[in-house]
Amino acid sequence: MVAGFRHSTPGPSDQYNQLHEYELTATGNLYNSVPEPGKKYTDGSSIDWLQEEAAERERSHALHSQAGVRGALLPALDSARMWIVVIATGIGIGLAGAWLDVLVKWLGDIREGRCAYGFFYNSVACCSGLDAGEFCVEWQTWSQYFHIKSMFASSFLQAFVYISLAVIFGGTSAFLVENYAPYAFHTGIPEIKAILSGYVFDAFLSPWTLLIKALGLALAVASGLSLGKEGPLVHVACCMAYLFSRMFKQFRHNEASKRRVLAAAAAAGVSVAFGSPLGGVLFGLEELDAFASETDVMWQGFVASAIAAVALQWVNPFGTAKLVLFQACYLNFPSVTALSDTWRAFELIPWISLGVIGGVLGSLIIRLNVEIAIYRRQSAVGEWPVLEVVFASGVTAALSYLVVFGRVQTSELVANLFQECDPTKGDYHGLCNKYSPNATKENIFLLVLTAFIKVVLTAWTFGMMVPAGIFLPTIGIGACLGRAVGLVMQSIYRSHPTAWFFQSCPPDPSVRCISPGFYAIIGAASMLGGVTRMTISLVVILFELTGALSHVLPIMISVMTAKWVGDALGKDGIYTVWIAMRRYPWLPPVHYRDQGETAAHVMRSVSDLVVIKDGVTTVRELLDTLRQHDYHGFPVIDKHGEYVGYTTRDSLQLAIDEIHFTEGAYGLEDKICTFSKNYMLVSASNRIDMSSTLETTIIQLRKEVSQEMLVSMFQKMNPRQIIFTHAGKLTGMVTKRDIVDLLTQHFPHAASLAREPPPT
Amino acid sequence: MVAGFRHSTPGPSDQYNQLHEYELTATGNLYNSVPEPGKKYTDGSSIDWLQEEAAERERSHALHSQAGVRGALLPALDSARMWIVVIATGIGIGLAGAWLDVLVKWLGDIREGRCAYGFFYNSVACCSGLDAGEFCVEWQTWSQYFHIKSMFASSFLQAFVYISLAVIFGGTSAFLVENYAPYAFHTGIPEIKAILSGYVFDAFLSPWTLLIKALGLALAVASGLSLGKEGPLVHVACCMAYLFSRMFKQFRHNEASKRRVLAAAAAAGVSVAFGSPLGGVLFGLEELDAFASETDVMWQGFVASAIAAVALQWVNPFGTAKLVLFQACYLNFPSVTALSDTWRAFELIPWISLGVIGGVLGSLIIRLNVEIAIYRRQSAVGEWPVLEVVFASGVTAALSYLVVFGRVQTSELVANLFQECDPTKGDYHGLCNKYSPNATKENIFLLVLTAFIKVVLTAWTFGMMVPAGIFLPTIGIGACLGRAVGLVMQSIYRSHPTAWFFQSCPPDPSVRCISPGFYAIIGAASMLGGVTRMTISLVVILFELTGALSHVLPIMISVMTAKWVGDALGKDGIYTVWIAMRRYPWLPPVHYRDQGETAAHVMRSVSDLVVIKDGVTTVRELLDTLRQHDYHGFPVIDKHGEYVGYTTRDSLQLAIDEIHFTEGAYGLEDKICTFSKNYMLVSASNRIDMSSTLETTIIQLRKEVSQEMLVSMFQKMNPRQIIFTHAGKLTGMVTKRDIVDLLTQHFPHAASLAREPPPT
Repeated sequence: MVAGFRHSTPGPSDQYNQLHEYELTATGNLYNSVPEPGKKYTDGSSIDWLQEEAAERERSHALHSQAGVRGALLPALDSARMWIVVIATGIGIGLAGAWLDVLVKWLGDIREGRCAYGFFYNSVACCSGLDAGEFCVEWQTWSQYFHIKSMFASSFLQAFVYISLAVIFGGTSAFLVENYAPYAFHTGIPEIKAILSGYVFDAFLSPWTLLIKALGLALAVASGLSLGKEGPLVHVACCMAYLFSRMFKQFRHNEASKRRVLAAAAAAGVSVAFGSPLGGVLFGLEELDAFASETDVMWQGFVASAIAAVALQWVNPFGTAKLVLFQACYLNFPSVTALSDTWRAFELIPWISLGVIGGVLGSLIIRLNVEIAIYRRQSAVGEWPVLEVVFASGVTAALSYLVVFGRVQTSELVANLFQECDPTKGDYHGLCNKYSPNATKENIFLLVLTAFIKVVLTAWTFGMMVPAGIFLPTIGIGACLGRAVGLVMQSIYRSHPTAWFFQSCPPDPSVRCISPGFYAIIGAASMLGGVTRMTISLVVILFELTGALSHVLPIMISVMTAKWVGDALGKDGIYTVWIAMRRYPWLPPVHYRDQGETAAHVMRSVSDLVVIKDGVTTVRELLDTLRQHDYHGFPVIDKHGEYVGYTTRDSLQLAIDEIHFTEGAYGLEDKICTFSKNYMLVSASNRIDMSSTLETTIIQLRKEVSQEMLVSMFQKMNPRQIIFTHAGKLTGMVTKRDIVDLLTQHFPHAASLAREPPPT
Repeated sequence: MVAGFRHSTPGPSDQYNQLHEYELTATGNLYNSVPEPGKKYTDGSSIDWLQEEAAERERSHALHSQAGVRGALLPALDSARMWIVVIATGIGIGLAGAWLDVLVKWLGDIREGRCAYGFFYNSVACCSGLDAGEFCVEWQTWSQYFHIKSMFASSFLQAFVYISLAVIFGGTSAFLVENYAPYAFHTGIPEIKAILSGYVFDAFLSPWTLLIKALGLALAVASGLSLGKEGPLVHVACCMAYLFSRMFKQFRHNEASKRRVLAAAAAAGVSVAFGSPLGGVLFGLEELDAFASETDVMWQGFVASAIAAVALQWVNPFGTAKLVLFQACYLNFPSVTALSDTWRAFELIPWISLGVIGGVLGSLIIRLNVEIAIYRRQSAVGEWPVLEVVFASGVTAALSYLVVFGRVQTSELVANLFQECDPTKGDYHGLCNKYSPNATKENIFLLVLTAFIKVVLTAWTFGMMVPAGIFLPTIGIGACLGRAVGLVMQSIYRSHPTAWFFQSCPPDPSVRCISPGFYAIIGAASMLGGVTRMTISLVVILFELTGALSHVLPIMISVMTAKWVGDALGKDGIYTVWIAMRRYPWLPPVHYRDQGETAAHVMRSVSDLVVIKDGVTTVRELLDTLRQHDYHGFPVIDKHGEYVGYTTRDSLQLAIDEIHFTEGAYGLEDKICTFSKNYMLVSASNRIDMSSTLETTIIQLRKEVSQEMLVSMFQKMNPRQIIFTHAGKLTGMVTKRDIVDLLTQHFPHAASLAREPPPT
């Protein structure tokens, strides 16, 4: 009957999906309760923030206006539910992060050997409880375990197990991702950014994606592929928040509230990834632009972030009572302030050089990564994602095994590179061999080689069918290069300790003047700056990671240099580039400066718009329009072209269905739709009143406004569309999508990885 | 001649000021160069951000479109100038802060004695260079200096010098402020908040204010009045940034660019005040709402903040190589992580209680402060500001001298209260007397008494005619109460070490289970939360101050509790209350929720508006309108009431002056003003074309939008006014002032301290 109206609308596949989704959520009793229009969005569309805020306002108003105790209690309950979700997510992601660390450590270790106590101990747990100086015999390499004495056979066995397990881990991860949760691949941050800004992509946050992403991430990291766990952990945290938020109607029914919780979860994800609760909040602020100017949401992010860090610390996955591995690096020093004198003005030259290197190399990684991603999409490689991962794991493992610095996990490598040489501690692969110039040369060569290999592998890996973060490999590359520059400086100093350049160093060359470990931190900061183009959150994360609070100024200078140099070679960070390639409707929070163009240049003029005519369009024509066009909404004008309002597909369809149900189908299709009060006098039997379908939250501008202001309006108010009128007449319309396209038009590969032409 | 038009306009005093100001800035050659309309604002008005952004856009466009090298160089120079100002401000405020610290320390010390080496050494500098265990004989109290042996005479002399110098310092400070820079009184943060959001108040940032505020602050702090230096330092930093920015045209001519630099300066001010660079940035973000969503500005704030901290550390005013006094408190512990186990779940009960106390007492201070400020304004007290300060200094000094804890400067008191008792270190006024229950009781009584006295004195002092911050006294009150609660808990534990409540404590009661020093931190956090209603920046400032990173969770919980309790007793923090009392046009960044009202309820309807009629109004009528009304701008409508545009007083006046200059005065007053293209056909000799005076950046809405959305539009886009139209017809207008009044209407004393009815 009524359904006939809907099922008989064969339209573009997208429209079909929309209706399908729509039916699912109406749960069969569409006609008993009248759902509010515009409440549901299909995946792939953008929410209208103004609309959602208005809905939230109505709901909150309804709660507050309840009589008596209910009126006082319900709003409190509302806020309590939000905190439950935020706190549960914080605890959840803290525990998940800790569990992942334990799993990764164990998986990584069994590539080299096993524990005699039991198979499920990792090397640290296996050797714990020893006194200082005791040697750990319980941890056996595979050749020890199989009692292989021959040097050649032992090396071969070790390499074979190492590489095979890498391939198995990588392949399993890719297999899981491809078959069970394709959205679990890649970092997830571009999607989270888009979702937080209003993109609807619920499938991306499903429980199944959560599980596969977490498991696949552990396997991928353990396989030794050149990837990190940071971005994926943000994705996992958001999946968790989504899962918890589904328990409460207030989040299910309001996209804006849901996004507030997701923003807090994202901050918690970063907090766990780096053990950096403040860094998490600032990452949410700067990179995800998650808190807009709502300090409440920032506070929720901070709480989630702190709780996650506490949960992680409680589990204590590294057995060190510290949040992260790197923090070890400055505990050699009696106190942080002691560091404050250990850098000299001349060091600014190598540090700024590192900034320049970071900017150039970062841009190179971005470009390389884009080219590889496009090649993958266009060639046969894209058809065999699991094979690609297997191959990449093999190559990565083989290369890493040969170049010693790559053999350990990147996080361990970075921890070692950040560490200053300390005679009382062990030496890492001869990195601290102090007095042999040859060893230094060899180290510099190896470090640069490792960095070079990692650049290529990272650009290849980021985008394969496994969960993959870009942060840790970037830190690794930067740390290698930074340490290399530090070693170069150190050897120059050692050979010319009295040169004027080193005047400010202590005259005795045996006293340390250059700290190569700190150069590694600077290198890492520069590379991160070049790849992500973040600024303040990077600095905070790095000094939370390393404890180098007093060295914040050089870190800032190098990040700034890297960003400036990088921006000169291409404005966008790697996440922005991926967003543009996948054509997500996300507006970068940049200050857009036009060249004098006005909104008229980007607006769709009224002659190109599908409009509904107040008092003219019949129900039949209206249904035809709905069938032929899959736009989300339509402007309504009157006979004279005067702008009456804006209405959405969903609310129109609903209104017609409702009238059809109450008044029957007879003669309905010939009735005239009216939207304004001018038609109150027309006989009611000839018309149906659709004025209730008009949106109240439409922004109108004049087409003479500058593009700069138009973009700023979209960035700040986040509407779905803006209407242009002049002297009451509709002149045109601009949607968020148009603005997104405007802001990405400078990027050559925009939309090259988009799945399908997205809905308007 | 032409000037006749302007000078013959006797209007309200405000208009006169406006014209006066206008003449000053035109520097005599108004008619050679045509100044762009809307560029200048008088003090007391609000800028239109959209307008300023548009002007900045035009300027930047002009720079970029220069040919050749100039086109590449000028924009870079532009950005370089901004960085010069930011960096210079950072260095300047860092040095100024250090200099203030030194001055305050010396002034404070000479209240107790003098250095035998030389009059200008403070007690620390005087006694430096001693070996451990040596006793400092060079620092002499006044009775030692005058060789007074009698116990009574000695006490009397000490008290006399102490109190007289306090009165002299306080009186001098008030005298300087009242006579040379009245804007230098109070904290300055409410004004800075208003200025950053678009209020024009250049006199507040004058070099003279800078000097007097800095000097007066040092005197006021040294006088022992219950005030801190935090807010005033933010003001001083902004004055510096204003001074530096005046050197460059780009800041002089654009209010928006100027505000970006001021935002960075404010962050630097907080950074120096607390030695907390991150806290500075977050304070700018949360309390000043300074960075909107522009991460560039945040980055500038971070740079300024870090540079200021480095400059402060370089001067090293405390001789400790640390940024602040309080940091000492956790250096007893071998490492911060060792702290992580020293708090137990049952302690949440006293901590949450402290949060509740903070919330209640914070609201009490706000209310008391408001009542006192209004009484001061309404009674004769306000006429004798210097006398009031002299009296207050005397009372404060006498009370502080009697109650021992108050005798030292608040910062020193707080540092001692934050410190755990350590047998190897000195005991502070018997605070650590461990085994005498009577001493504990006495300490608790004294601490509560000190807190109570400080509550009253602080509420009185904050608003007197001296520079005064509220942060430090609030921390002091909180630290006293927190320490008292800590001592109560400790004595309960000591008398019942085996109670079930203390199960989680170690069984041996001689091992410390309760850390009263940390309770003091919690108390300080709670009080700050109650008074300022800040959240995340407080937490960050407190853990940057104390190094208690691992205790961040209890600090968060207590701040949160204090904020919730405080909000229940009145939504606004102390700065917001002062803004409301002084009626600054500042929009709190709260999520305003209406009760179903629409914009129609707050809008001024078209019948109440002074409008200009396109094609009808003559020049004479226009000049009359300008003379009679001091509105900043006027809507333009046509004969049929259709909305044509919006134009400002300045641009109208300019356009008329210009025509008058080029075409002469003859017949000018009878000409008709036209604004739209409809009148192109009317004979040019009968009309003057004013279409260029229309603003392009006007936002139009329909009066049916919810108040919530209207407020959000003002908060996010920050326009000066929004126009309402319906079907092309002007229906009304809302200005920022209307929205400010809407948001402060719940506050009973709104505008009670406003100097005069501010311009619209």
